[in-house]
Amino acid sequence: MQIAIMGFGTIGSGVAELLLKNNKSIVAKSGQASMEIKYILDIRDFDNHALRDCFTKNFDDIVNDPSVRVVVECMGGLEPAFTYVSSCLAAGKDVVTSNKELVAEKGYELLEIAKKNNVNFLFEASVGGGIPIIRPISSCLAANEIEEIAGILNGTTNFILTKMFTEQTSFEDALAQAQQNGYAERNPAADIEGHDAARKICILASLCFGKHIYPGSVETVGITGITAEDVAYAADWGGTIKLIGRAKKLNDEKICATVGPCLIQAHSQLANVNDVFNAILVRGDAIGDVVFYGRGAGKFPTASAVVADVIDCARHSTKRKLFGWGAPEDGYVLDAELQNSSLYVRADTDDYVAAFNAVNRAFDQPQILHREGEPKSEIAFVTPVLREKEARAAIAALPMRMKTILRVLDY
Amino acid sequence: MQIAIMGFGTIGSGVAELLLKNNKSIVAKSGQASMEIKYILDIRDFDNHALRDCFTKNFDDIVNDPSVRVVVECMGGLEPAFTYVSSCLAAGKDVVTSNKELVAEKGYELLEIAKKNNVNFLFEASVGGGIPIIRPISSCLAANEIEEIAGILNGTTNFILTKMFTEQTSFEDALAQAQQNGYAERNPAADIEGHDAARKICILASLCFGKHIYPGSVETVGITGITAEDVAYAADWGGTIKLIGRAKKLNDEKICATVGPCLIQAHSQLANVNDVFNAILVRGDAIGDVVFYGRGAGKFPTASAVVADVIDCARHSTKRKLFGWGAPEDGYVLDAELQNSSLYVRADTDDYVAAFNAVNRAFDQPQILHREGEPKSEIAFVTPVLREKEARAAIAALPMRMKTILRVLDY
Repeated sequence: MQIAIMGFGTIGSGVAELLLKNNKSIVAKSGQASMEIKYILDIRDFDNHALRDCFTKNFDDIVNDPSVRVVVECMGGLEPAFTYVSSCLAAGKDVVTSNKELVAEKGYELLEIAKKNNVNFLFEASVGGGIPIIRPISSCLAANEIEEIAGILNGTTNFILTKMFTEQTSFEDALAQAQQNGYAERNPAADIEGHDAARKICILASLCFGKHIYPGSVETVGITGITAEDVAYAADWGGTIKLIGRAKKLNDEKICATVGPCLIQAHSQLANVNDVFNAILVRGDAIGDVVFYGRGAGKFPTASAVVADVIDCARHSTKRKLFGWGAPEDGYVLDAELQNSSLYVRADTDDYVAAFNAVNRAFDQPQILHREGEPKSEIAFVTPVLREKEARAAIAALPMRMKTILRVLDY
Repeated sequence: MQIAIMGFGTIGSGVAELLLKNNKSIVAKSGQASMEIKYILDIRDFDNHALRDCFTKNFDDIVNDPSVRVVVECMGGLEPAFTYVSSCLAAGKDVVTSNKELVAEKGYELLEIAKKNNVNFLFEASVGGGIPIIRPISSCLAANEIEEIAGILNGTTNFILTKMFTEQTSFEDALAQAQQNGYAERNPAADIEGHDAARKICILASLCFGKHIYPGSVETVGITGITAEDVAYAADWGGTIKLIGRAKKLNDEKICATVGPCLIQAHSQLANVNDVFNAILVRGDAIGDVVFYGRGAGKFPTASAVVADVIDCARHSTKRKLFGWGAPEDGYVLDAELQNSSLYVRADTDDYVAAFNAVNRAFDQPQILHREGEPKSEIAFVTPVLREKEARAAIAALPMRMKTILRVLDY
């Protein structure tokens, strides 16, 4: 079977290396006589590369060659990826992508083009790097009604938060370390502001709930507001702070979807996920909670997922997989404040006793937190579980200046 | 599509309930017009059951009915399960099973019968209950050469060890609690002696390494020898003790496979898996370590995996999945002492100083462990990583009476 790779950056080159390195077992698993790279599309020159005869700068070479059965897209970004992928699907080729932006923004359109042309459009690598998650949700958990999905979906921010918790590094220093280590994505703002995680939770939510969810409908908060004080209070509470992408059913008809830093308890399966690792929790009505853990980014972990999809295309070369989701629906994603939540609050006050009493009047058994070196002007507490809209209104009415408000999760 | 269920115990009845409860979404995912239970085979009477018209005591009703496309086997045990499953596959029906003993002992034969008859034989539920693991290994990780697989595969023993660690319960009391809670399998010896975990690691190893591995070739040690003293020393070392089923490549041609209690560090993704939960770690050359966590047993988690396989059969109703492993190979599983390991040792001695000096002469930088209330007659230590055969010989030559020797893992 002939394969084309579009984009020869970190992931595209990893895909090529992996296809060559493990070729024998990959061929055996594919059910094909061979698995060969025919083209590599990149605007740069690779005249001295071992695969130099495969390189082209002309997309038409790929789309017009009927011997190319599977096209791998690792270019990133919306364009020209969307145009190229659409054209390949329309030309009757299976497409495999690692491009989360493409799937989050254009997944439904591309799945429809794939369906119309009876080809596969697969994207296991677009969420969680090499962690198997797309296929397990669509196949292994197919007997479940999914109630909620939540995960640590961005390695850069998890590295930063891990440094802040385990080494008391400041946010700024931890970010600098992440950049020195090459963990930050092309645009670091996309990581620390939560947009990368928002794209990934959109893909997972679309798959779990069956309708395309766009990043624009996800309440997205980054980690730039998290301070050493919050870290200390979270530790006193008995947990940690993680950037969690979540989507959950609010009722039979609607969901909410959020990305933001959350308090989670130390014994949670998500609390012990450190450095650049990712983990995704799926809550189903039959299975309960399952968690998938591994490397959420990086050359070979991501290439591992891409090549698995290529093998799957080869296995299904005469048949389209039943896979994907339906059209977006206006009003399907509700305001996240309609859920019931427990909230963590840190605030400044001119009168601690008055603030303390106000918190105790406003909430039934709030949990007051403490930290070493806590000034008299600071108060921190965790509310009981309440409808969030009302809890936030009650918090806003308290006699104090809000510094941080975070959701508290109970996984 | 018409389905038959053989065995209406905990899992079989869970499968029926789940097929009815989530029927609408299951049908949608199956690509079939309907998903209906036609027969339930059980030797008992269910005259007042809502599905009473489905019950039969005659296997021939199922195997001779061409309208039955998928047969679910939840009877457990080798016979008559093997005879019935073989007959169904030979009759051109897909078979889904939750029966680990059947797959571990007869998997290769049944996969061959399935291949010959161009039907599917699926067994996601046979390992890890509802945790997606069989399909992720065979599909999502297909681009990897698997180097090692290791897991907490038995909920009963994990419950017991968790009680021993977190509440300092004795082994006997923890076992009694497990039995009171209904966690023990039909034969509790199969759990505590490690045989249940051995069957499961055989299935995983067969899938990862491509040749049928029989339970007889797995070095199997249970948890009955673990004492409060070992628990205390493991805590001093900075970890915990878990019953781990493992299979790993020793070289390009051979593997070793073991089940036994092992020390694992507190920060390991396997250390934090408590009570009846299971977790499975897969180490691939491209992906690194991935971990799958969830409920490894129970009515609905296991039924979730069975029904997912049924849906997969429906999706592939005209095509057999490329899936399974090859014939067993004599000498493929080597003696586990050929691996390199670090070992934990607890022993009695008449002369602590002499014993201490002997340990330090025998090993380069052994880690001596301590516990509260440690008598002068007791010594415990962890060896450096060595070829295990030599390390065990050196330990046997030490001037002390061995009480416990466990492998130390570094996941």
